[in-house]
Amino acid sequence: MNYIKKVAYKLKTSERVAKALHNLRDMNPLVHHITNYVTANDSANITLAIGASPIMADDIHEVRDVVTLSDSLVINLGTLNRRRLNSMMEAMKKANKLGIPVVLDPVGVGAIPYRRKIATDIMDKMDIAVVRGNLSEIKALYGFKIQTKGVDTSEVISTNKAELSGIKRFAKHFANKFDTVVAITGRIDVITNGKDLYLIKNGHEMMSKITGTGCMCTSLIGSYIAAGERYLYGTIAGVLSMGIAGEIGQERLMENESTGSLKMKLIDVIYNLSEEEILKRGKIYEE
Amino acid sequence: MNYIKKVAYKLKTSERVAKALHNLRDMNPLVHHITNYVTANDSANITLAIGASPIMADDIHEVRDVVTLSDSLVINLGTLNRRRLNSMMEAMKKANKLGIPVVLDPVGVGAIPYRRKIATDIMDKMDIAVVRGNLSEIKALYGFKIQTKGVDTSEVISTNKAELSGIKRFAKHFANKFDTVVAITGRIDVITNGKDLYLIKNGHEMMSKITGTGCMCTSLIGSYIAAGERYLYGTIAGVLSMGIAGEIGQERLMENESTGSLKMKLIDVIYNLSEEEILKRGKIYEE
Amino acid sequence: MNYIKKVAYKLKTSERVAKALHNLRDMNPLVHHITNYVTANDSANITLAIGASPIMADDIHEVRDVVTLSDSLVINLGTLNRRRLNSMMEAMKKANKLGIPVVLDPVGVGAIPYRRKIATDIMDKMDIAVVRGNLSEIKALYGFKIQTKGVDTSEVISTNKAELSGIKRFAKHFANKFDTVVAITGRIDVITNGKDLYLIKNGHEMMSKITGTGCMCTSLIGSYIAAGERYLYGTIAGVLSMGIAGEIGQERLMENESTGSLKMKLIDVIYNLSEEEILKRGKIYEE
Repeated sequence: MNYIKKVAYKLKTSERVAKALHNLRDMNPLVHHITNYVTANDSANITLAIGASPIMADDIHEVRDVVTLSDSLVINLGTLNRRRLNSMMEAMKKANKLGIPVVLDPVGVGAIPYRRKIATDIMDKMDIAVVRGNLSEIKALYGFKIQTKGVDTSEVISTNKAELSGIKRFAKHFANKFDTVVAITGRIDVITNGKDLYLIKNGHEMMSKITGTGCMCTSLIGSYIAAGERYLYGTIAGVLSMGIAGEIGQERLMENESTGSLKMKLIDVIYNLSEEEILKRGKIYEE
Repeated sequence: MNYIKKVAYKLKTSERVAKALHNLRDMNPLVHHITNYVTANDSANITLAIGASPIMADDIHEVRDVVTLSDSLVINLGTLNRRRLNSMMEAMKKANKLGIPVVLDPVGVGAIPYRRKIATDIMDKMDIAVVRGNLSEIKALYGFKIQTKGVDTSEVISTNKAELSGIKRFAKHFANKFDTVVAITGRIDVITNGKDLYLIKNGHEMMSKITGTGCMCTSLIGSYIAAGERYLYGTIAGVLSMGIAGEIGQERLMENESTGSLKMKLIDVIYNLSEEEILKRGKIYEE
Repeated sequence: MNYIKKVAYKLKTSERVAKALHNLRDMNPLVHHITNYVTANDSANITLAIGASPIMADDIHEVRDVVTLSDSLVINLGTLNRRRLNSMMEAMKKANKLGIPVVLDPVGVGAIPYRRKIATDIMDKMDIAVVRGNLSEIKALYGFKIQTKGVDTSEVISTNKAELSGIKRFAKHFANKFDTVVAITGRIDVITNGKDLYLIKNGHEMMSKITGTGCMCTSLIGSYIAAGERYLYGTIAGVLSMGIAGEIGQERLMENESTGSLKMKLIDVIYNLSEEEILKRGKIYEE
C-alpha cells in the first residue's frame, strides 16, 4: 500500500472514531459489567467519563434482568470465582439470545491454567463480539502454552518487522477461528476481525505499570459498541481512546508525578476527550 | 413562610450542621459498612476524612460482633449477592436490637427487580433510620414501576415548581409509610422525616459522573448519626457536607482536570471541611 | 551501644535497603495477593510502583497454581469470608511446601473475635515469614484481649521510654513464640526477628487517615521478600519505603490538599523512590 493511500485510510478511520465518540455521548448507553474487585471502580469511572453508564451487578438472580436493560455486556475474568462465573455464564446466554454484544477480557489467562480452561469454554459456547487481552493472554486462549509475570505485564509485541508479521497472522487466525474481533494490546495494538487488520501506535509504556489499564480499555470498547458502533470499529475506537488518554495524561505529568497521578489523569482526559484530539493524535494503520 | 423567617431557619440549620461536624470529629465514632466492592475504598476514605472510623466486615460470622462495637451501620446494596445479603440481615437484626441506627443505600433498586424486592423486604422487616437514594431508587422502593440508566444517573429532580411540589409530597408519604428519614439526592436534595422537610441546593452536576458519590454521601450520613446527631439533622449534615465538597472540589479543578481529579478532591475537601465553610456555603431551605 | 556504633549500624541498614530496592527492580518478582476488596487496587498499584508484579487470584481452583508461579504470597484478612479463607489456607499450604515466603496482614484482628481465632489458627498451622500489623492487631494475635476503633486506627505506640521498652520486649516475645519476623507499625515502627530489633521513625500521621496504608506496607514487604531479601531486612525495607513515601508525599501536598491527594502521591513517590532518598531519609535504629 503506498503512502498516499495509507494516509487516506488513516484519516478515514480516525474520522470514524471521532464520529463514534460523538454518537456515544449522544446516546449514553448502558454497559453491564461483570468484573473483578481490583479494578471495578476504575472501570465504572472510565465508562462514565467516556459518556456511557456502567452497571456492575453480578448476582445470578439479577444478571438476566440487567443484561436485558443493557446495550452491551463486559465480561472480565479478574479475581474470578465460581459464584461470579455462574452469573457470567447466565448473563452471556441471555445476551446472546437478545443479540446484545459481549466483550471479553480474559485477565490472567496467560498465567492460570484453570482460568484458561474457563475462557476457552466461554469462547466455545458463547458468541463473543470482541476479545481484548495482551499477547500472552490471547496466545493462551488460542492454545499456546505460556507463562506470564502477573496480569499487568505481558509478552511484549515486537516492533521487529518479521515478528510483528507473525503476530498479525496469528491475530487473524484467532479472529477467524473464534469468529470474533480480537484486540491484542501492548506497545503496538493489533486489531482484526480476521479480514481487516489495524495497528494502533498510541499509548505510553507507563500505562503498563498501572493495574487496570487493560480493564479500562475493555470498558471503553464495551461503551463504543453499546452505542451501536460495529464491533471492529468500536474496538478500534476503545483502544485508540485509551492510547490517546495515556499519551496526553503522561505529557501532563508534573515533576515528581508518576503512576498514581497518571491513573487519575486517564479519567480526566477521557472525560474531556475531543474529536479534534482523536483526529490529530490517532496513529491508526490499516494493513 | 416569609423571607426573614426562611433566612433565620437556614442559619439555624447550618449552625446545627457545623456543630454536628465539630462533635463528630471530637467523638471519632465507628461506622460499620456492609457495602459493594466497586466503591468500598471511597466510602472508607471519606468516612476517615470526615472524622469517623470505618470498618467493612461482611462475613456472617463477624457482623454481629462488629455491629456491637459500632455506632452506626451503613447497608449499601451495590453488587449485592446472597452471601452478603445474609450478613446484612443478621447485622441489621442485631443493630435494631441494640438500638444502633441503620442507614440504607438502595443502590440499583430502580433498575433491578430482584434488588427492589430485597430492599422492600428490608424496609418491611427492619427499623431503618435513614434511606438515601436518587429519585428513581426511592420511587422504586415505594412501589412505582420505573427503569433507570445504570446506577449513577437518575431521574432528575425537577426545579419546576409544580413537579418539585409533587416530589416533596411523595417524600413525606415515603417517610411516613416507612417511619424513616428519607433523602432524595440529585440536583436539589429533598430530606424529610415525614413532618419537617428540607431542600438543599449545594453540589455540582459533575458529581453524577463519578461512581460512588451517592455511596460516599450515605457514609457521611452514617458518620454524623454515629456521632449521636438526630436522624433528620444527621442526614441534612451528610448531604450538605457532600454537596459543599462537590462545589468546592469543582471550583478547585485546574485546566484539563475533570472527574478523575474531582473524586480525589472530594476527599481532600471533606478532610479540611470547616464549620465556617458550612455556615458560609450551606443552601438549606426549610419548607 | 555508643553513638558512633549506632550511626554505623544505621548507615549499614539503610544501605542494605537501598540495595534491596535495586535488586527488586532488577528482578521484577511476582507477588501473589489474597486480599480484601476495599484496598486491593491500592495494593496492586503500589506493588507495580515498587517494581514487582501483583497477581490477585483468590479462587480455590486457582491459588495453588498461582502460588507455584509466585515469589511470595501476601495474605490479608480484610473483608474476610469463608470462601476466600479456604483459598488462603490452600495457598499457604502450597507456599509452605514450596518454600515460598508468606506475609500475613491480620487486618481487624484487634476488633473482631472470629477473625482473631482464624489468624491464631493460621499462626499455629502455617509457617509465616512476616506478620505486619498495628499494635492492637499484634497484641490480639498474641492473645491479649483488646478492642480497637475500626481497622485503620490503632493503639498508638508510645514514645515514652518505659512503655516503648515494654513494646520492644513484647515484640521479641511474639517473634520467638511464632518463629516469625514481626513488624508493629505506627508512629514508631518496631521490627524484630526475636533477636535483632529495629525501630523506624519515618512516616507521617496523616497516613493513618487513609484506608489501606497498612495493606500497602504489607505489599511492599511482600515485594522485597519476593526479590530474595532476607525476611528481617525485607520487612525493614518495606516499612521504611512506606514511611519515606508518606513523608515525601506529605511534604509535597499543596494548599487545600490532604488525604485524597496523599493517597495518590504515595504511589507516585514509591514509583520514583531512589536509593539516594532511602540513604538520606531513612531513620532506622538498631537496638
